[in-house]
Amino acid sequence: MAKRIGILTGGGDCPGLNAVIRALVKGAILKRGWEVVGIEDGFDGLLEESKMRPLGLNEVRGILPRGGTILGTTNRGNPFSYPVEKDGKLEIVDISDRVVDNISRAGIDALVAIGGEGSLTIALELMRKGVPVVGVPKTIDNDLLETDVTFGYNTALETATYALDKLHSTAESHHRVMVMEVMGRYAGWIALESGIAGGADVILIPEIPFSIEKICESIERRRSRGSRFSIIVAAEGAMEKGGNRVVKSGPDLRHQVERLGGIGEYVSRRIGKCLDMDSRVTVLGHLQRGGSPSTFDRCLGSRFGIKALELIEKGIFGEMVCLRGTEIRSVKIEKAVRRLKLVNPRGQMVNAAEELGIMLGR
Amino acid sequence: MAKRIGILTGGGDCPGLNAVIRALVKGAILKRGWEVVGIEDGFDGLLEESKMRPLGLNEVRGILPRGGTILGTTNRGNPFSYPVEKDGKLEIVDISDRVVDNISRAGIDALVAIGGEGSLTIALELMRKGVPVVGVPKTIDNDLLETDVTFGYNTALETATYALDKLHSTAESHHRVMVMEVMGRYAGWIALESGIAGGADVILIPEIPFSIEKICESIERRRSRGSRFSIIVAAEGAMEKGGNRVVKSGPDLRHQVERLGGIGEYVSRRIGKCLDMDSRVTVLGHLQRGGSPSTFDRCLGSRFGIKALELIEKGIFGEMVCLRGTEIRSVKIEKAVRRLKLVNPRGQMVNAAEELGIMLGR
Amino acid sequence: MAKRIGILTGGGDCPGLNAVIRALVKGAILKRGWEVVGIEDGFDGLLEESKMRPLGLNEVRGILPRGGTILGTTNRGNPFSYPVEKDGKLEIVDISDRVVDNISRAGIDALVAIGGEGSLTIALELMRKGVPVVGVPKTIDNDLLETDVTFGYNTALETATYALDKLHSTAESHHRVMVMEVMGRYAGWIALESGIAGGADVILIPEIPFSIEKICESIERRRSRGSRFSIIVAAEGAMEKGGNRVVKSGPDLRHQVERLGGIGEYVSRRIGKCLDMDSRVTVLGHLQRGGSPSTFDRCLGSRFGIKALELIEKGIFGEMVCLRGTEIRSVKIEKAVRRLKLVNPRGQMVNAAEELGIMLGR
Amino acid sequence: MAKRIGILTGGGDCPGLNAVIRALVKGAILKRGWEVVGIEDGFDGLLEESKMRPLGLNEVRGILPRGGTILGTTNRGNPFSYPVEKDGKLEIVDISDRVVDNISRAGIDALVAIGGEGSLTIALELMRKGVPVVGVPKTIDNDLLETDVTFGYNTALETATYALDKLHSTAESHHRVMVMEVMGRYAGWIALESGIAGGADVILIPEIPFSIEKICESIERRRSRGSRFSIIVAAEGAMEKGGNRVVKSGPDLRHQVERLGGIGEYVSRRIGKCLDMDSRVTVLGHLQRGGSPSTFDRCLGSRFGIKALELIEKGIFGEMVCLRGTEIRSVKIEKAVRRLKLVNPRGQMVNAAEELGIMLGR
Repeated sequence: MAKRIGILTGGGDCPGLNAVIRALVKGAILKRGWEVVGIEDGFDGLLEESKMRPLGLNEVRGILPRGGTILGTTNRGNPFSYPVEKDGKLEIVDISDRVVDNISRAGIDALVAIGGEGSLTIALELMRKGVPVVGVPKTIDNDLLETDVTFGYNTALETATYALDKLHSTAESHHRVMVMEVMGRYAGWIALESGIAGGADVILIPEIPFSIEKICESIERRRSRGSRFSIIVAAEGAMEKGGNRVVKSGPDLRHQVERLGGIGEYVSRRIGKCLDMDSRVTVLGHLQRGGSPSTFDRCLGSRFGIKALELIEKGIFGEMVCLRGTEIRSVKIEKAVRRLKLVNPRGQMVNAAEELGIMLGR
Repeated sequence: MAKRIGILTGGGDCPGLNAVIRALVKGAILKRGWEVVGIEDGFDGLLEESKMRPLGLNEVRGILPRGGTILGTTNRGNPFSYPVEKDGKLEIVDISDRVVDNISRAGIDALVAIGGEGSLTIALELMRKGVPVVGVPKTIDNDLLETDVTFGYNTALETATYALDKLHSTAESHHRVMVMEVMGRYAGWIALESGIAGGADVILIPEIPFSIEKICESIERRRSRGSRFSIIVAAEGAMEKGGNRVVKSGPDLRHQVERLGGIGEYVSRRIGKCLDMDSRVTVLGHLQRGGSPSTFDRCLGSRFGIKALELIEKGIFGEMVCLRGTEIRSVKIEKAVRRLKLVNPRGQMVNAAEELGIMLGR
Repeated sequence: MAKRIGILTGGGDCPGLNAVIRALVKGAILKRGWEVVGIEDGFDGLLEESKMRPLGLNEVRGILPRGGTILGTTNRGNPFSYPVEKDGKLEIVDISDRVVDNISRAGIDALVAIGGEGSLTIALELMRKGVPVVGVPKTIDNDLLETDVTFGYNTALETATYALDKLHSTAESHHRVMVMEVMGRYAGWIALESGIAGGADVILIPEIPFSIEKICESIERRRSRGSRFSIIVAAEGAMEKGGNRVVKSGPDLRHQVERLGGIGEYVSRRIGKCLDMDSRVTVLGHLQRGGSPSTFDRCLGSRFGIKALELIEKGIFGEMVCLRGTEIRSVKIEKAVRRLKLVNPRGQMVNAAEELGIMLGR
Repeated sequence: MAKRIGILTGGGDCPGLNAVIRALVKGAILKRGWEVVGIEDGFDGLLEESKMRPLGLNEVRGILPRGGTILGTTNRGNPFSYPVEKDGKLEIVDISDRVVDNISRAGIDALVAIGGEGSLTIALELMRKGVPVVGVPKTIDNDLLETDVTFGYNTALETATYALDKLHSTAESHHRVMVMEVMGRYAGWIALESGIAGGADVILIPEIPFSIEKICESIERRRSRGSRFSIIVAAEGAMEKGGNRVVKSGPDLRHQVERLGGIGEYVSRRIGKCLDMDSRVTVLGHLQRGGSPSTFDRCLGSRFGIKALELIEKGIFGEMVCLRGTEIRSVKIEKAVRRLKLVNPRGQMVNAAEELGIMLGR
């Protein structure tokens, strides 16, 4: 039976989003004869009819190698706690009824929500109000449970490793400590894997509180063996031992961990004090979100899109597509959003890093 | 107890080999105080003492981002069927006793063989003669069983997709059919995944015999919808329906599938006959083996190396390290080399490709 | 005074064409209030009204980083010798009157022809029939006189050097001779500059006939000094000493130099006979034309486009924009197309290559 | 006559330095039979014998594609004003006599100084004290007079444009203003050329004081035409109209222009106040210095090295090699260091940018 599906992308942009959108559109139209509605700017687009538009084959032509999302995205727009101005004051109200209404009025039979923990949680709540939703996991930080990995992360790793390769030449030539700050508020995956791949000497992740003294000792030890430079990769959420940040999942608390100048700056300054070495900071920032997706991310995004269609076809809702080994499967959304997927401080990857001689800050 | 381990790399070179070697050396020396012997040019290096040399931290400095293998490699040197010149004639003899002797005289407690199906089979036979071996899987074609994937494949995919991105501009500008031939004698993984990621219109793999007529029909259909160009990715081992190649694993038969001009040339010529369209061929060839390994391959190679050390430490021999989901495990070598891992013509990845509107030649 | 300008791209595609088109459109519309007509598929587009369409700001949005040309191009369509089928036979006729008529009927006040020697020669002849033309030089081979360099060449060099970097790892790991064939039918610029940048050991260019014996001697000498691999870069038009190709500019004769298997194959086979070394060939082919243009080519293309508008504004026709040092200037088209710009076999660049220890085949 | 030449690299590191060093070593040893002495850590290396070491062919093997300098470099070590600790206080003394002495004792017949304005000025002063010097220009900022361009700049441009391409996807997806800060304390070349190539909407350079109001107006105008994002590239030395920085060449004053948070942060904050748009900053920083040099920079560096040898051979000292059009020439060092090469605010490149619709802050 012909269907009309709606697609939205929520949260930060991520390489591979367009691959998912393209796969959904191609698979829906070419194979199934369904219609597709593109919803602009995340959940915000469910508030206004003008932000829903038909997506055809023409709209997805040539978008596979392009970063970002042709649908636009925002971090706002949670219909269950929506900021509304009333009498000059900002009030948080629940406008989800209106959103459910809009979805139904647009004739949308199934809503594909592509997003991270935050967006998937909203999708789940909409599901509970009767909207048939399918989730597609998206997190550049690799911090979503129940899937081996999601698209975007691989591209972000390439960007970070490419940057580390570049910093190596300056570090070596100038005998410097180079600190590179990468994404990762709660989970240190990007720092850990790009650090291993980029030949870092020290890696600091949120899951392992660090000691500046031990870092300095380790750089000193390297120097005494003739290595006159060191490379440090620090996840933005890395914390000093004794620091008072409480790790808690959920986007509401995220802004607490922002800090004047950032962790890179902090580590560099502290190291400068205990070592007589020149130290410089690079903050990768938004570069990690951008650019043409890697082969891995384009494939994974495409396969996720096709799998989402199959779930809709079978009438399976409330699930999120996921990667397990080499297979695409699906899993209940609530299992995926119950907490963030963090690096295990005693796990295999951390252990490998330490056996490679990398200092984890402890 | 202090050990001395030997490392060799066999078969074609592959991005990530140096990451494995570096991890083995670092993990052995820094953490365990073991000695490492580098064996040059694959199994050939076991024949001459001059080809075994100590590998220290200095030898592996800076090799992580470099392609190839610092140990050298060859496709020759199988000690169980070794070509020896006798009275002006080439004779195939079994010199494995001498090799086993050399290994023991070099004081090697464990041999780490990094290689594909061929090299791992040799390693297994050496094991049966008493040499304690650990295998590290290496195949740029992704055709090894029992591991989700090996290093090198991801980098090769990036190279192939990068090339497809490039060919797109010429194909579009000139309204041409562009055929790109990629590696894959028996397994079509590179063609399939790079084709999906590179937005190919037709993908030809060894596992699915193709029909030129159907390919031409599909290009014709595209043209009638206004698409004046098409991109075809062909694995080197792709075969026309009714062709008489018998797929059989094992390196001995591989050269049968080589063919004058290659499959790319053949497909291009045949298409030129049935369509009035300009067609050009690109053979990626050795570019797919080369270059700096991707982040994924550097990490995977590093983790494989560390895992191999752990196996040796525990006295587990005859096993090959492998990736399962996000974990590094190990598996009996004989399970991995019993046949090649081929694309399932009715499997999930092929299905996704077809739902994306890609023509698989059938 | 408001004007309407026509733009066409002729000959092979080339990274940077879209930068020129975008600059012409932006500079014409934003600054001058002119109209722009895009002519599709090179000079062919001047034959049919349906191939001329208005180009506005929307049409050039996002095209700067994209390879190829949004206008399409062909190598056919010379209106002065146009193939027409008459009574089942192909006849070459002069249809330039019709073309001149079409241009005037389309209300085009000035025609910007972006192309190489061939396209610029046609443009010049149209000029002589009264069409006000401005030329923008385009040659991926860098064989156009009167400009230091054109766009496309820099990107092609990057592609070739990137490939050489990749081949190095295989060459080193396998102790092989790797031959890479690059573009350059008459001029060896790509081979020469990418060879210098990619650390080639031997470079073969059309301007210097080569001796296989001397090449083998040089590889032998390298081997005796301990270098067990060699990298050869060969321009597709390179010739053996005593070979009988007559170098002549003009696209008509170009196909004479095509040869079974190509120069790379030939050199590899001949070297295999005199040396006992494994040798492999890579033909870069269309990869050199493709891909996102480099910064240099995007800037140069953009500046060329703006300069072309300035010429039109001043009523200067029959000139081609060009780069001299760091300045964009212009020069009479006839000066640029009088012959190809070849590598000087005794010039500074060849001399530098030889001082670097590179063997030029002589 | 056999000679012994000394090589040093001064100032910040820069892609292409190793190409120069390699060319000097290869050209000196292979062609001329000269000896080469590598001087470590810039002019600092002239103070201690232990920092001078013979450079042979082995030392330069494989360094062509590598960033940085194998000789190391520092920004310190000016022998004419050298900081020495005396009685617990830092005193600036002239130790140039000792340096001249060391050079002569090391048997160095000619000193090749590879560096920017600062290093070349020191070289010139050593020349005046009798040391035969040849200069090789190096500036990643492209701010050296008397050469069309130097190596390193092209690679830095590629890095900056690559980053802009990445930021585009986030800017578009999130409807944001993205500000990217690039190098350029006094000269805006990197900002200007990467901005043109990366499709920036606003470019801020030190040579053109900017007005925040006008920038906001221009972004507002874009938004009213439907473009919901804007990209701003700012050179680190860009200044607001009415700001009080005095532009003066010479490294001594450079640190005055450093500022809390940097120009990117400043512009972003100011724009956020006058526009209701989300704005983010990326500081490229040291990424611009790093990485494998581009083809252009490897070739130019190699040719510079060879030219320097020719000058020594002819006994021409006190000159700096340079690029003019397509030729390598030489020029008196004093002509090159008399002031920095700045962007002409009324010149061709700025004009082209403005015709492309780019806002230059004025």
